[in-house]
Amino acid sequence: MPQSVQRRQAASTGRRLVRKTRPPALLAELALRRGFRVYQDPLANLFIRRDGKDGHHPPFLIGSHLDSQPTGGRYDGALGTLAAFEVLETLEDAGIVTDVPIEVVAWTNEEGSRFAPGAMGSMAFSLGHIPESWQDIQGTDGVFWRDALAETIAALPVAEQRALGFPISGYLELHIEQGPSLENENIPIGIVTGVQGTRWLEVTVAGQAAHAGTTQLAFRRDPMVAVTSALHMLYETVMPEDDNARLTIGRIAALPGSVNAIPGSVSLTVDLRHPLTDRLNTIEAQVLAAFQASAALHGCKVDIRKTFDMSPAPFSKAVIEGVEQAAGHLGLPSKHMISGAFHDALYVARVAPRAMIFVPCRDGLSHNEAEYVDPEHSVAGTQMLFQSTLDVLNTLAIKQ
Amino acid sequence: MPQSVQRRQAASTGRRLVRKTRPPALLAELALRRGFRVYQDPLANLFIRRDGKDGHHPPFLIGSHLDSQPTGGRYDGALGTLAAFEVLETLEDAGIVTDVPIEVVAWTNEEGSRFAPGAMGSMAFSLGHIPESWQDIQGTDGVFWRDALAETIAALPVAEQRALGFPISGYLELHIEQGPSLENENIPIGIVTGVQGTRWLEVTVAGQAAHAGTTQLAFRRDPMVAVTSALHMLYETVMPEDDNARLTIGRIAALPGSVNAIPGSVSLTVDLRHPLTDRLNTIEAQVLAAFQASAALHGCKVDIRKTFDMSPAPFSKAVIEGVEQAAGHLGLPSKHMISGAFHDALYVARVAPRAMIFVPCRDGLSHNEAEYVDPEHSVAGTQMLFQSTLDVLNTLAIKQ
Repeated sequence: MPQSVQRRQAASTGRRLVRKTRPPALLAELALRRGFRVYQDPLANLFIRRDGKDGHHPPFLIGSHLDSQPTGGRYDGALGTLAAFEVLETLEDAGIVTDVPIEVVAWTNEEGSRFAPGAMGSMAFSLGHIPESWQDIQGTDGVFWRDALAETIAALPVAEQRALGFPISGYLELHIEQGPSLENENIPIGIVTGVQGTRWLEVTVAGQAAHAGTTQLAFRRDPMVAVTSALHMLYETVMPEDDNARLTIGRIAALPGSVNAIPGSVSLTVDLRHPLTDRLNTIEAQVLAAFQASAALHGCKVDIRKTFDMSPAPFSKAVIEGVEQAAGHLGLPSKHMISGAFHDALYVARVAPRAMIFVPCRDGLSHNEAEYVDPEHSVAGTQMLFQSTLDVLNTLAIKQ
Repeated sequence: MPQSVQRRQAASTGRRLVRKTRPPALLAELALRRGFRVYQDPLANLFIRRDGKDGHHPPFLIGSHLDSQPTGGRYDGALGTLAAFEVLETLEDAGIVTDVPIEVVAWTNEEGSRFAPGAMGSMAFSLGHIPESWQDIQGTDGVFWRDALAETIAALPVAEQRALGFPISGYLELHIEQGPSLENENIPIGIVTGVQGTRWLEVTVAGQAAHAGTTQLAFRRDPMVAVTSALHMLYETVMPEDDNARLTIGRIAALPGSVNAIPGSVSLTVDLRHPLTDRLNTIEAQVLAAFQASAALHGCKVDIRKTFDMSPAPFSKAVIEGVEQAAGHLGLPSKHMISGAFHDALYVARVAPRAMIFVPCRDGLSHNEAEYVDPEHSVAGTQMLFQSTLDVLNTLAIKQ
């Protein structure tokens, strides 16, 4: 069956889809043509089902997402979803009968770029309900989320309706790494053992707005100086001292923002990540201490609010073992790694055994139109998803 | 005559003007009532003339501006203009006849907050013409400058029209310090010997936008790190090593500005000031070197453009001597100082001998509604302007 995977993969990378059909509709059309059943839940999560011997057993889910960033590429999400469909077709082509149903899933709004938060589909699926607060969410274009959702559901009348959230046997997701480590080490397969924890802080350092020309150093309470001093200290310590730590300032602004005025305040965001909760706590404390000390030194005040706190999510031992076995069966070099990015698997982790498979992407680039995956790696990842699905069903011992 | 100054000053600080009349119209009305002549030039610069013995001698100008910042205070500009009018009234009250005409001037649009650039009135006056490029200037509200100017001129029909730019004997301006040094040293009078030079740089450091979670330190080309490192070095050296240097980052932004993305670029403004051109050159070179070294170290590229370059403007020895003598005559403690802010005097400096007098403002605060000048300092400043006008006429030897 790797034959058929390779053949179809080669064909699909050789041409560009220019159809205007929405990606879920196109996928549903392909699925119905193959005789699979297509479902949609109230979050517009799309499911494509191939039955197993036991029709009542909770399905094993494979998939990813089909949405992207405004200037995102062609692989983030799409690779994992189409690879999962390829697995389903390959099972069908090879006439393999699994004990449990296998379902492809395409989760809704993983990116959160029009409607925040991201991973809405997998989050609501794992909760089993839609959080009340989501009803009033408006998109970056002012459209209400509930209206866009209704429109999305209505756009796929071929799908059967299904309730939100149901028992599943496990979850496996193929995704591009969105970082450079596999490419740099020339390893085609990453076996993802968990998603690192993330915390977002909003820091505001307030000083005293004053005239840039008339205010001597001794009388300055310049929040930009305080911020620079704190960041310099953090950049010199947090990441250099711990290879698994991530510290990113993605947003910064000085107010009032006049070229010739010492700013009254400087606001910035801090994105902290680490696979271990203890280390996250320590680093967060370092950040607070750095800003407090620096603000005090420069006559400023600091306000720090935590706006997001996602605990590290280790993946399931049994699923990881199945993926390890698959890499062995296929003779593909692999390494264990932690995911630095969020994924739907993070939320599904709450309700089922799960793991992820990563493939390299060129220059580690993602959320960028230049995002690119070597066809060889797309094929290897898809083969891994196929083999892992079979091997994980064994390691999970869900055969009956 | 200090008696009458004190009396009127006390009265005016005791009440608030609630009239809706534009400040120039109010001033013109007060001037006409006292029998002074009122003129307006094509820039809407307002002149109030008290004749001298020699009606043909170029007038000696005293004054400042009446416009303010959107959230500016009540003293920046207004103090110097009203004090100048007070001087004219006091000369009249005391029956003092000067050899040359004395004129109060209120320059148009010193602040430049609605229409940039600032100091348009004094700039056009010293040029003797209106720069062609100004015709298409639009205000922050979209209004064309030329229309607003026509409206302003039409709003003061009582003023006689006068050509733009004419010979003057000298210029003296009272202004609030807009900085804290006089207040901190408890000195009521600053004798301003010049305006420091100013340069504005726009710095953009470009790196590689990437995922905050997936990108290890070794693969980051984070422009925020490069900017922090350069600024840290500059903040530690430029001002601490030279009391007369000013380095201010008033505006900074990271693009694309996502909490969870390493920014692709960071842009900021640098405001540099120093009274000496040589030192300005050295500091500008330090800034360039710091950003270039830091960008190279972090795999980034830097682009630096100079958007403004105003040479240091030393004031006139003879005018400064007159102001020094006045401080001696009045027994007022004073110190020599450099102006960190721009002033109309900077432009008038091109066409006539000039100097400025500073008085303290509370906490050095300006361009802020909390701006405040102790009545005692307003009185001292006004007395100084009066006495200096008489003494400067002597030191300039323009008596005939």
